[in-house]
Amino acid sequence: MTQGSVLDPTDIRVFPGSSHPDLAAEIAQQLGVPLDTAEVSRFSNDCLYVQLGATARSRAVFIVQTLTPPVSDHLMELLMMIDAARGAAAREVHAIIPYYSFARSDKKDAPRISITARLVADLLQTAGATHVMTMMLHSPQVHGFFSLPIDPLTARGLLESQFHGRDLDGTIVVAPDIGAAKSAARFAGGLHLPTIAADKERLSDTEVRVNPLIRRQVEGYRRAIVYDDEIATGGSIVTLCQFLVEAGIEQISAVCTHGVFTGQAAERLRSVPEITEIITTNTVPISDETRALLPNLTVLSVASIFSEAIRRNYNRESISSLFVFGDDEK
Amino acid sequence: MTQGSVLDPTDIRVFPGSSHPDLAAEIAQQLGVPLDTAEVSRFSNDCLYVQLGATARSRAVFIVQTLTPPVSDHLMELLMMIDAARGAAAREVHAIIPYYSFARSDKKDAPRISITARLVADLLQTAGATHVMTMMLHSPQVHGFFSLPIDPLTARGLLESQFHGRDLDGTIVVAPDIGAAKSAARFAGGLHLPTIAADKERLSDTEVRVNPLIRRQVEGYRRAIVYDDEIATGGSIVTLCQFLVEAGIEQISAVCTHGVFTGQAAERLRSVPEITEIITTNTVPISDETRALLPNLTVLSVASIFSEAIRRNYNRESISSLFVFGDDEK
Amino acid sequence: MTQGSVLDPTDIRVFPGSSHPDLAAEIAQQLGVPLDTAEVSRFSNDCLYVQLGATARSRAVFIVQTLTPPVSDHLMELLMMIDAARGAAAREVHAIIPYYSFARSDKKDAPRISITARLVADLLQTAGATHVMTMMLHSPQVHGFFSLPIDPLTARGLLESQFHGRDLDGTIVVAPDIGAAKSAARFAGGLHLPTIAADKERLSDTEVRVNPLIRRQVEGYRRAIVYDDEIATGGSIVTLCQFLVEAGIEQISAVCTHGVFTGQAAERLRSVPEITEIITTNTVPISDETRALLPNLTVLSVASIFSEAIRRNYNRESISSLFVFGDDEK
Amino acid sequence: MTQGSVLDPTDIRVFPGSSHPDLAAEIAQQLGVPLDTAEVSRFSNDCLYVQLGATARSRAVFIVQTLTPPVSDHLMELLMMIDAARGAAAREVHAIIPYYSFARSDKKDAPRISITARLVADLLQTAGATHVMTMMLHSPQVHGFFSLPIDPLTARGLLESQFHGRDLDGTIVVAPDIGAAKSAARFAGGLHLPTIAADKERLSDTEVRVNPLIRRQVEGYRRAIVYDDEIATGGSIVTLCQFLVEAGIEQISAVCTHGVFTGQAAERLRSVPEITEIITTNTVPISDETRALLPNLTVLSVASIFSEAIRRNYNRESISSLFVFGDDEK
Amino acid sequence: MTQGSVLDPTDIRVFPGSSHPDLAAEIAQQLGVPLDTAEVSRFSNDCLYVQLGATARSRAVFIVQTLTPPVSDHLMELLMMIDAARGAAAREVHAIIPYYSFARSDKKDAPRISITARLVADLLQTAGATHVMTMMLHSPQVHGFFSLPIDPLTARGLLESQFHGRDLDGTIVVAPDIGAAKSAARFAGGLHLPTIAADKERLSDTEVRVNPLIRRQVEGYRRAIVYDDEIATGGSIVTLCQFLVEAGIEQISAVCTHGVFTGQAAERLRSVPEITEIITTNTVPISDETRALLPNLTVLSVASIFSEAIRRNYNRESISSLFVFGDDEK
Amino acid sequence: MTQGSVLDPTDIRVFPGSSHPDLAAEIAQQLGVPLDTAEVSRFSNDCLYVQLGATARSRAVFIVQTLTPPVSDHLMELLMMIDAARGAAAREVHAIIPYYSFARSDKKDAPRISITARLVADLLQTAGATHVMTMMLHSPQVHGFFSLPIDPLTARGLLESQFHGRDLDGTIVVAPDIGAAKSAARFAGGLHLPTIAADKERLSDTEVRVNPLIRRQVEGYRRAIVYDDEIATGGSIVTLCQFLVEAGIEQISAVCTHGVFTGQAAERLRSVPEITEIITTNTVPISDETRALLPNLTVLSVASIFSEAIRRNYNRESISSLFVFGDDEK
Repeated sequence: MTQGSVLDPTDIRVFPGSSHPDLAAEIAQQLGVPLDTAEVSRFSNDCLYVQLGATARSRAVFIVQTLTPPVSDHLMELLMMIDAARGAAAREVHAIIPYYSFARSDKKDAPRISITARLVADLLQTAGATHVMTMMLHSPQVHGFFSLPIDPLTARGLLESQFHGRDLDGTIVVAPDIGAAKSAARFAGGLHLPTIAADKERLSDTEVRVNPLIRRQVEGYRRAIVYDDEIATGGSIVTLCQFLVEAGIEQISAVCTHGVFTGQAAERLRSVPEITEIITTNTVPISDETRALLPNLTVLSVASIFSEAIRRNYNRESISSLFVFGDDEK
Repeated sequence: MTQGSVLDPTDIRVFPGSSHPDLAAEIAQQLGVPLDTAEVSRFSNDCLYVQLGATARSRAVFIVQTLTPPVSDHLMELLMMIDAARGAAAREVHAIIPYYSFARSDKKDAPRISITARLVADLLQTAGATHVMTMMLHSPQVHGFFSLPIDPLTARGLLESQFHGRDLDGTIVVAPDIGAAKSAARFAGGLHLPTIAADKERLSDTEVRVNPLIRRQVEGYRRAIVYDDEIATGGSIVTLCQFLVEAGIEQISAVCTHGVFTGQAAERLRSVPEITEIITTNTVPISDETRALLPNLTVLSVASIFSEAIRRNYNRESISSLFVFGDDEK
Repeated sequence: MTQGSVLDPTDIRVFPGSSHPDLAAEIAQQLGVPLDTAEVSRFSNDCLYVQLGATARSRAVFIVQTLTPPVSDHLMELLMMIDAARGAAAREVHAIIPYYSFARSDKKDAPRISITARLVADLLQTAGATHVMTMMLHSPQVHGFFSLPIDPLTARGLLESQFHGRDLDGTIVVAPDIGAAKSAARFAGGLHLPTIAADKERLSDTEVRVNPLIRRQVEGYRRAIVYDDEIATGGSIVTLCQFLVEAGIEQISAVCTHGVFTGQAAERLRSVPEITEIITTNTVPISDETRALLPNLTVLSVASIFSEAIRRNYNRESISSLFVFGDDEK
Repeated sequence: MTQGSVLDPTDIRVFPGSSHPDLAAEIAQQLGVPLDTAEVSRFSNDCLYVQLGATARSRAVFIVQTLTPPVSDHLMELLMMIDAARGAAAREVHAIIPYYSFARSDKKDAPRISITARLVADLLQTAGATHVMTMMLHSPQVHGFFSLPIDPLTARGLLESQFHGRDLDGTIVVAPDIGAAKSAARFAGGLHLPTIAADKERLSDTEVRVNPLIRRQVEGYRRAIVYDDEIATGGSIVTLCQFLVEAGIEQISAVCTHGVFTGQAAERLRSVPEITEIITTNTVPISDETRALLPNLTVLSVASIFSEAIRRNYNRESISSLFVFGDDEK
Repeated sequence: MTQGSVLDPTDIRVFPGSSHPDLAAEIAQQLGVPLDTAEVSRFSNDCLYVQLGATARSRAVFIVQTLTPPVSDHLMELLMMIDAARGAAAREVHAIIPYYSFARSDKKDAPRISITARLVADLLQTAGATHVMTMMLHSPQVHGFFSLPIDPLTARGLLESQFHGRDLDGTIVVAPDIGAAKSAARFAGGLHLPTIAADKERLSDTEVRVNPLIRRQVEGYRRAIVYDDEIATGGSIVTLCQFLVEAGIEQISAVCTHGVFTGQAAERLRSVPEITEIITTNTVPISDETRALLPNLTVLSVASIFSEAIRRNYNRESISSLFVFGDDEK
Repeated sequence: MTQGSVLDPTDIRVFPGSSHPDLAAEIAQQLGVPLDTAEVSRFSNDCLYVQLGATARSRAVFIVQTLTPPVSDHLMELLMMIDAARGAAAREVHAIIPYYSFARSDKKDAPRISITARLVADLLQTAGATHVMTMMLHSPQVHGFFSLPIDPLTARGLLESQFHGRDLDGTIVVAPDIGAAKSAARFAGGLHLPTIAADKERLSDTEVRVNPLIRRQVEGYRRAIVYDDEIATGGSIVTLCQFLVEAGIEQISAVCTHGVFTGQAAERLRSVPEITEIITTNTVPISDETRALLPNLTVLSVASIFSEAIRRNYNRESISSLFVFGDDEK
């Protein structure tokens, strides 16, 4: 980092939402600016109340909020923080949303539903956001839902680096479904590994069925890296892993950007001994409980990616190297 | 109701949000139209999923959602229902919000906060609402936060009617603070009673201090009707009632439009035996627990007010008689 | 069609853009309303000039324009017709765009490019469109690019009906790439056929390489139905068909919604004798030259689908049965 | 003021509207920048014509216009100046509106009226304003009518300072109505004085009736400071003062932020000899005639408050100390 | 007028602004609907207050306001009426503006001025207008300043009809400047008369100099019809008429759509005895004083044109026959 | 140019559209900044694809695109480049459009047409432009069609300078029609020459008839300078020149800002030997063929005017001296 790229701490504000203060702190620390505070409380009628803890006037404001459970509260809090920053005459209001969970609602696969990923993009603009940074959107088209400039960053390099120097002989990369195939293929390409996509059929939000043809496809491989954008209940990835084990795979690395781990996810992952490691990032905060249940879990920090993107953006440098186009996303 | 005013059930959709299905059903029933359904569920990552259960194309859609706890979820659900109706080519999308809880955030009484009552008004418009109906806003200026046509209805007549025919000798109407004074005065006027406003100082969200001057003001009265827009924790109204009792009041009717009753509200209200009755409406659903704790609670239904307003609006009749301007609100 | 569903011809205007007057005429004819005229000419400086040929005041205006070459002219003409209709005080302005060719630009797979499918959606709204009808979008997320209500219809039923009653023994449905897999699977499902997706790698706009693994997947099948959303230069589908032939397929039906057939498409398709039939629709007008070159081409008309959707929309009936959600699109 | 806070006169433009050139000049002088000119004239058909007298390109433009009679002309002039600055490519356009007279139309207290305080906020944004500075809004909710960042400043400190060092024994602060009570209470608090609110009933725009209960409340006090946001016709304040005199008050200081003094205001104030002084500010220009009629009138300049707010805003410093939240407004 | 074209008086509201109640009444009378009322008053601080006198809910509202002096007040009043109608949930809000005086500010002929004709078009939309009707805009391009549908009607047929049946031998039509030439030529064409345009140079808002070449152009003519869009101070038309008289013209008819007649207009027109008649319309109300000073003044009513346009618009008939395109405007 | 006015090449991006790369290069060269690249290609379905060749993040981006044939493609390309720059987080996006060909569609001279000059102004804003620079609009009112700041520059000084030092005895300036009269008069004024306007009647887009009165007006003159804003097919100017020759003019200079020269323009101009020179600018690129056919054609570069305007705009200097208000435009 050259002299010229040092940030002016008096011109920048980093406010943490309540969803992920640790990541916000890490980002601020890497930027070399103080972490500001935001007081969040509730009225007795349950309405949120948010106050930013430092002058925002004419400054570049960065609000770090990941959209993890309770999602609606975290979104509302984010909208209020953006509104407060705009009302306080901030020059720019950047929403840093490591996990844009609404991205899954990206199409109308039933009549009379909301394409919520688009709706929330509009709400962010209405509240006053001028720029959004996020990571690994569920589908690359979600980018187009935003009228604002948006930078969807990638953690692929970070995840890939975990496998550098390892013996990857007999290893195949498996995308859990066709949607994840492209992204997995790039990941595999970076490691010079072959890749296949499971033909998964979703029976419900938590249940899936795997097309038995995959059995023939993994023939001859001993190890698999299952690569997905997110693990939530763990239901579908575990079903797939069981399938792979039956098909002869002896050792599985489960890799994902967003480790949501809701419900029985940790227990489910523990139930397949062949899953020897789980690698994810901290776009979603990982609870102590999950860490305890999953001793083979590695959590990589995306703070350096976000802080570097913020730094470059502030210094008017290109950040396109931080997201490999068309592949950092499914 | 004349022949001409009958509604066309095929042209109208009434969808209940999950906050208050009973009120929605009652409104639909009084309108003589079926209550449609809306399926609300959650993805495993906690994001809401909403689907309207009937064709909205070119129809007048009414979505009934009151903004009670969990407020952020209920708001998000409402925004998604509005968005879904718009996306399904509804002709008009009416948000029926009996309790607009955000109205309390109506000014900037601290730096760098959000005037959330305005923000939410803008979000409703972004989502696609074309008209809003609500009741008893915390301050009449909140009306001006909406760019959309909005009808703030009043329950004053309903509440007043409970006292018709009673012996009101020696009774005074008490507004719990200066903000509620105007509204209480109109209520008192309708019953030909005198009125005073307590000079309450808010120490925190739940604690208040009453100006001792009120003691002199209630001298000579035996009964009081305490009239407020909402009771949430009950903290401030109970403090006031204790004060009134010390000042010689023997019997108190607590009257409010929005019976939010959070936390220890019911217990607090029970703790003052002089509060012989509590009268509220169903803009907020009252839990069985609260009803059990408060046997002297009367809950009046606002369904007829909303259904009449909807009917008149649909039939292009004036609805201004349903809200006495400048008095139905504090 | 019941008595009640008859359209009022004085309340409806159907204007054809210059891209596909035949389809517009067919739609109007099926609606039972006259086809109105639109004069399109050019100033000497090449700027377009458009005049609608019938009063639009307070009417429901339907403009039929498919976005075929010259695409920019056809888009500009459409925007001007929409603007003219709005300026003439039309009540509603519906853009009927059978082939929304911009849908391919739906993500940022390189830095500093335009997500043009979103840009054009915004331009349509700026010009004054109030509703859009289209068919088989390249990806279902494109739906979310529109702030307007949009109905993406499907031709799948139409295409499927061509195979009813045929002997489909030994037939497999092949999606030319992973993106088309879901859509092909539903098509296959309707015919109770198995389906596979070729793993195609795009080398350039016209060149692709097929993953050799497909060879093993089609083993044992004699006939293939290749199912895609569009055929433009024919380059990639022909490469795939050659591959299939080498893998033992003896007879191929090429099926697509949008038969764009640009450049050497017809010649290329002729060059593979095993392609015994090509089935497409008239979302794009098929030139006489193409028809002459491809005697085995069947062109199905989508006019009935659009006219039925318009009729139902006008009569406030649900049209969701006209698009099978999540499958009519890739 | 540190070296760093010196303004760049080439980057700032201060244009005076025709309503209050003296205040504009004073503000510019305190900022250390030249006062630019704006030519205002009228076409023969009465339409205004406005030309800014200095290049605005990429500069921060401050337009000083107070909304005094003729209000519509002054508003129109302001909108045209804003539009001209935007059209001349100004970087920021700040509307400095010391007296936002429309703030009184802040609610719908009758059917089918305009909430004009909201309408004008929208008009300012349509014309191109990017920021508004004003003083002592009639109600704090008016803040929420603006989508733009707005700084409502307070003159309370200035007014309070007039009483520092005086013997205030036997003095009570009187708010002329319940709406002004909070604001008066803070003013009183700053001077360690008790406060009461008159219960005034407005009979018409100029006539009021005072609740006789006030008599008991001022018992024992000799001097009163009547504190209001504005004095227009003087009708209601004089009625109140007469009441106070009858109740035993011997000496009255009338204090207000906005000294509008229309119609017979000066004569009315002269008619009560116990009103020994009137203290106001120059948010509204005071005519020589009024000054002559009211020798006991003190006019404090708010120029330093506005210039300091502009300076801090320009230098990205917090200006929240310039407005005590929730109390500088009624 | 056929049976089918009768208006539904319960669905229509005609509200008069204070600028021209007579014209509003005449329009309502010709439409066969009652004239509704609008109360306009002023607060003591000079801000306007407007209340519509009849329910607007879901109705088509027509507000008749011509932008004559005091222009700013009349504009503000119009904006508030529009806002009130929108807030009262009107279905459509039509602004009927017979004389759009701002049309003269249609270009930037000096730096840093406002193109006010565009600004006001935007303000009307911000306030909530959905459609505008006006007459004889100063330049036809002003049409394009409106995003809303706008119908600029023409009074040319009305004015022309005054000359039918007259002996027009030796008569020439004179446009007072090049800008009015086209419009005058069409007027002349309708009467089969020759036309010339004076080359007038504007020295100030009220003074002009006529190019002496006109002398040769009118050689051989005895009578002239001077045709302009508006007469304000009369300065320029009188200068021209004096010139024509010197050049040998013996008798002049002065014809204009907008008879603004400000300042000394009547006196000036009286001062040229050869001006034997003045023909105008009532887009601007003509004062009794002006009528008294100008006994040879004929005022034609445009009420029938506006009422016919409203009627056709309401009944979805074309109104283009009411404005001859490209000629009813200069 | 002072030291202070040097531009920062790292803060500026100049991207050429495909319509006029030479002019873009010349502008960049005169600004002392590199010319960046933009890759423009086409998908096989004819949709354009555009990629900007250099980081735009937080920079001032200037896109140079003149709207010459193929106009629709060039417009679409411009809109996509603007959108790409905005999406890449540019600080400002300036559209430099030397020839805004749509300006001719500036009014509704027929029913149900688009005022396309306004529509395109709106499309530019929708795509994300923040400022427009253009030259010699067809009518000055077109300025008002833009909500964005727009600078319409003039080439009059450049064109005028060609006649400095020449013997202009016996020369008259001729405007080809009344619309061009004002502009020609200013040009004539600068050279101290008399001016007349031909009374041209347009029979079709390419054919006109000249009023024979011009014969008397040019009596006594030997040389004429015909001055217009653009020459497209050359039809009308050649008709006029033939007329002038018949009326005794011996030598003609044809002068225009926009040398569009479509169809047979060059041949037509050659056919009148008295047209001894044609002077135009390079707002439109002149083909080699046209240059070969017209050896007496002089093409002046407007690059210095645009680069100076860009430089001043960037340095916050006034650029009003670059456009003489009200005369650089017809």
